[in-house]
Amino acid sequence: ADIEAGKSKAAEVCASCHGVDGNSPAPNFPKIGGQYRTYIAKALKDYKSGTRNDPIMAGMTANLTPADIENLAFYYSSQAGGLNSNK
Amino acid sequence: ADIEAGKSKAAEVCASCHGVDGNSPAPNFPKIGGQYRTYIAKALKDYKSGTRNDPIMAGMTANLTPADIENLAFYYSSQAGGLNSNK
Repeated sequence: ADIEAGKSKAAEVCASCHGVDGNSPAPNFPKIGGQYRTYIAKALKDYKSGTRNDPIMAGMTANLTPADIENLAFYYSSQAGGLNSNK
Repeated sequence: ADIEAGKSKAAEVCASCHGVDGNSPAPNFPKIGGQYRTYIAKALKDYKSGTRNDPIMAGMTANLTPADIENLAFYYSSQAGGLNSNK
């Protein structure tokens, strides 16, 4: 997987809700920075296939290629997690 | 919500997969320590109702009361997130 490609794709598709570093600024969007790479990839695949159903994420994942998914999972899993907000 | 009740319920139901502090030891289980409280509660409600479908989590949430869910969300959201493993 290509972390730089993941960073670019993240900025393009994901960052407006989940943040550039995955520490989503709003509590309705989960934090994903530092989440397990395998889990991020699974979530994206499940949203894309419809196994996991969310209208926003269905749209966001519709045009992701398998390589995009691996790159995004690599990128966000490598970001520092600030997952302690208690909001 | 009662954080001590959440801690007890977490130890009883959640910790074997997600860890006592939510930093799951295995990459097939997502880290939940420090995740947004509202998001944890939503995930648990969605698993319980079947809106979100996972056979393990369906079983784990089947007997959670609404108060249990709020207490668990309070507890895990307050744990320090170590969400940066890149596994």
